[in-house]
Order: sequence, then structure tokens, then C-alpha cells
Amino acid sequence: MSIKIGILGYGNLGKGVEAAIAKNNDMVLTGVFTRRDPSTLKIKSQGVPVLSAAELDNGAADVDVLIICGGSATDLPEMTPKYASLYNVIDSFDTHANIPSHFSNVDAAAKKAGKVGIISCGWDPGMFSLNRVYSDSILPGGTAYTFWGKGVSQGHSDAIRRIDGVVDARQYTIPVEKALDAVRSGKNPELSTREKHTRECFVVAADGADKAAIEEKIKTMPNYFADYDTTVHFISAEEMKRDHSGLPHGGSVIYSGITGEGNNHVIEYSLKLDSNPEFTGSVLVSFARAAYRLEQEGVSGAKTVLDIAPAYLSAKSGEELRAHYL
Amino acid sequence: MSIKIGILGYGNLGKGVEAAIAKNNDMVLTGVFTRRDPSTLKIKSQGVPVLSAAELDNGAADVDVLIICGGSATDLPEMTPKYASLYNVIDSFDTHANIPSHFSNVDAAAKKAGKVGIISCGWDPGMFSLNRVYSDSILPGGTAYTFWGKGVSQGHSDAIRRIDGVVDARQYTIPVEKALDAVRSGKNPELSTREKHTRECFVVAADGADKAAIEEKIKTMPNYFADYDTTVHFISAEEMKRDHSGLPHGGSVIYSGITGEGNNHVIEYSLKLDSNPEFTGSVLVSFARAAYRLEQEGVSGAKTVLDIAPAYLSAKSGEELRAHYL
Repeated sequence: MSIKIGILGYGNLGKGVEAAIAKNNDMVLTGVFTRRDPSTLKIKSQGVPVLSAAELDNGAADVDVLIICGGSATDLPEMTPKYASLYNVIDSFDTHANIPSHFSNVDAAAKKAGKVGIISCGWDPGMFSLNRVYSDSILPGGTAYTFWGKGVSQGHSDAIRRIDGVVDARQYTIPVEKALDAVRSGKNPELSTREKHTRECFVVAADGADKAAIEEKIKTMPNYFADYDTTVHFISAEEMKRDHSGLPHGGSVIYSGITGEGNNHVIEYSLKLDSNPEFTGSVLVSFARAAYRLEQEGVSGAKTVLDIAPAYLSAKSGEELRAHYL
Repeated sequence: MSIKIGILGYGNLGKGVEAAIAKNNDMVLTGVFTRRDPSTLKIKSQGVPVLSAAELDNGAADVDVLIICGGSATDLPEMTPKYASLYNVIDSFDTHANIPSHFSNVDAAAKKAGKVGIISCGWDPGMFSLNRVYSDSILPGGTAYTFWGKGVSQGHSDAIRRIDGVVDARQYTIPVEKALDAVRSGKNPELSTREKHTRECFVVAADGADKAAIEEKIKTMPNYFADYDTTVHFISAEEMKRDHSGLPHGGSVIYSGITGEGNNHVIEYSLKLDSNPEFTGSVLVSFARAAYRLEQEGVSGAKTVLDIAPAYLSAKSGEELRAHYL
């Protein structure tokens, strides 16, 4: 019997989840739910209904696990607790500072309903968090360094698009090779924001726009760019479409710690992703399997990736994993 | 209240466990147990009793978790089930082919006693297994490559030492850079044994020994060396002591898989370890914490690293992990 998955929200992430479900034989997509008019939405999967998000409200939708593909700023804080009171849910909530309160809201709703809600799945938070915790548990007192990129930051790209005279923009976050090398050597360097990453921006300017002014506005934008070495390239709309239409990303968590009389150990986990939303969607889908199994066992409440035994993520049996993967 | 740890066996791994316990404030070493005459054993920790292994037999030793530091060939298949019927136990059983039967023996003993036995902890099996399973769960249908080294293989060093005329030997397993690059590029290459690793041997020969014959015996030794490009260096006993007395190791699990319309993703987990036994010992200690907690919750039976939620390994609370590590 397949695990029935619903997707709420059909942006890049929702499409990534849809692609991931197609790779997992023990799962079936039973509905895509949208806040838009469902008749305007064309999805890739054949024979899967597109339904109004309102159809979820009475708890009767035919889904074992609902994967909520909304934004962390305003969607998820409201949606995840709401739907956790009706369904097992998964989200990719990524505002690190607000995870504790989001966790507690989802926990209360899910416990009351006897459902499981796994929050903050993806790669950071998500796979990177797992590696920070495994490493810190094995080598307590060590230092974790997280690097992002090379990859497209959608938040930074959006910030550039909001500048007057900008038609389109793509921003790449790039880790500084020298910093990576210093960390990998186990030297435990102190690194400033500027020393860890650079930012490279590709911008399509409107006809007649003041490019120098745009460049200045980008480079001095607080929080987003002012603390980084930033380069800006003006390109044509055709070049943007041809060279920058993908959403690659990646990065690494590098942990360095000491045992005994000064023996040093370096643990590195790194990702090189052609498609950020498809990889993130794939992570969400594997945790959906875990949510379903936990509910079947009578577990309820909010969980994070740190609370899930790895075997729950796999479609393979314990016997098969022990025989071939251990 | 501290978790009371006992160590059975005081070789390199037992010493690595001892060093790890000293880094974990929530644990205390309450005894080192040995099959040798305890009066002949001098341990590093102050004020910790060295006791005969026989003291464990009635189940009354003052330990919450016993970490069994024996060999996989003959010690652990007998010892882990035996002590799992008396204590929570941890081992680093690493004969991959025999893990299913070892698991089932430990499971039966531990369940009957209401204890927890976590087998095959370490880095391979162990952390590498975790990464194979996480990756395969996220990107099913992809390919996992495991590389070992650069590091000292104790089994291969021992095999050389058994050759007539060899006084001492150290063997390094070295991954082939070209193979690593091909795998990292996501090309999914088919790699033979010879293409993945080379073997470098440092040998102290007895006075007057036939070095050419020794070299020939090493290079043609079935299973150990015949399938590899092997180089042999003859060195003096002084050089051996000066340059090769450490036990560094490491390696990587590289997983590559596809999503959607051919988007490729590469996940790499790599370790660079100054001391193999101290790192392995540190992994065992973190899983000892999990075994203790699981027994407190009423869980019993055999487990592997795949069955343990990561948060159980950490001395930090769920709240602290969510606030600072997620």
C-alpha cells in the first residue's frame, strides 16, 4: 500500500517534491492543493487532482502526509500548525532564529490531533544540521563551520530585483577557497563574514537605467551585501535566460575537533546540487515517509530531523539496510 | 548524574574510548575490564579500577553501559551477545558480511534481559553507513562510492608482518585521486578495485633477509595486495618509529543521484583522522549515551547506528539543539 502524499503550494519547491515522489515507488501523489484558482494550475503529474487549499480544511482530504511548500516569512508559521491539527505534515521552515517557537506551535497542534509534524527539513536546516549534531556529539568542544555555495540565493536575487531600474537579477553566493582550505587543515581559523563568502550578481537593467547607481545600491545594501566583497555584472535578458536559468546550490559543513593528546579530526559534509528545489523536495519526501511510519506507531507531536532515526527515511527494510548499507 | 561506562579490553580502541570519555562531562569511567591479569595493566585514568573480565559475569559490575573493545573475528561474536544479556553494550563489529547474524544474536540476548545493544559503531560501519543510508533515502536509485584512506590498515600491516624475514610493517591505503575526481563530477564511473585504491607498504626487514622475495610475496598476496597497485619501501626500525607510529585514517562516501529531468546531485561525507582508534572510540562513546537513554525509556534489543535518532547522541538538550544547531 502506497503512502499518499499531498502537496500544498506549487512553486519551485512544490514541483521539486512532485519530481521526488515520482522516484519513490512506495508513495503516490494524491493531490496538489493551491491557494490560487485550481483551474489555472497545470501540473506535471498525470491524473492527479489540483484542488483548492480550502479542501484541506475539514481534514477529509485523501492524504497520509501533507508536504507544505510555503515561505518561511509568513506562510509556514501560520500554515504548519493549522494543518498539523488535521494531517501529518512536513515543512522546510528555515528562519533559524524562530525555529523554537515554530516547533512549539506545531507540537501543540500535532499532539492534540495525534499527528506528526516534522519541521525544518531540507539541507540547511536539515542535512547540514544533522552533520553539525553528529559531529558535535562525537567530538564535543570542536568547531563547526558552514559554507554555502556556489549557488543561487533566491533571497538575495529578490533583494536586487526590488531596486529601481532592475528588470531581473541572479545572485551567486561563493565560498572563499582560502577560507575552506584553512578550515579543512584543522587550524580552527577565526573568519569574518567577508572572509568566508563572496557575492556575485548578474543584473538585467532597464533601458536607460543608471547602472552605476544600481551597482552602488547593491554593494551598499545592509545585511545583504554591505559586509561582503560583491561583484556586479550587467547582462542582457537573453544572457540571463541562457546562462542563469538553473537553481544550483550546495555548500559544506566542516567540523574540526580534538581527541586525546591533541589528535585532530576533520569531518566534512558537502553538497553539490544541480537543482536546489529538487534536492530539498527529495529531502522532504524522505521525511514524509518517516512521519507516516511514526504516526502508525502511535507517535505524535513536532519533530525535527534530529529526532528521526535514519532507517525511518528509507523505503528499504531494516534487514536489507543491515545487509547491504551498514 | 553521570552515565557510568565500563571498557572491556584495553588495546588501541579501549584507550581511544578512555580518551573520549574524558571529553564528555556527563560520563564517568567506572572500570576497565581485561582478560589479562589486571595487576599487569596500567591505565591512564586516575582512580579507576582495573578489574578482571570475570567480574562482569554476574551482572553486578557498576556500569550503565559496557563498551566492548574486542576484535570482530573471534571476540565480538561471542562477547557482545554474552554481555548484552547483562548490560547495555556497544561494539564496533566490522565484518560486514556477518552483521545480520551478529545483530540477531545480540537482539535475542538483549531483549531477554531488557537491555540495549548497539552494534557496528565506528566510522565504517558507522558514520559511513549513516551517510550511505541518508543519501540513498533522499536520492533513491543513485550510486554510493566508498573510498578509504589515506590511512593505516591494521589488517594489511599484520598480513605483511606474518611474512618470513619481516620485523615490522605499516601499510597505507590510498584512494586514487583520478577516481575520486571522476566520482565527484557525478559521472557514475564503473571502477575496478585497482582503479579505486593503491597500497603503500613500509617494511623493516630482518638482517640478511631476501628483500626481493619479501616484496614479491607482498605484491602477489591474494585478497590483500594482488588486486592493487602496491609499492614497497624498505626502511629502518628507527625510520618506522619516527615516521609511522601514528594510526591516521579517513576516507569518503560519495553518493551521486538524479532528480527530475536529469538534475545531478553529489553528496560527499569525508573524514580526515589523526587517530583512527581515538575517533572510533569517540563514536562508540556517543552511542553509549544513546543506549543508556533508550534503556531508560524501556527500549530493549539490538540496534545499529541506523536505528538511533541523532539527538540521542548529544549531551545537549532538544531545546538547545533546536536553538543552536538546527
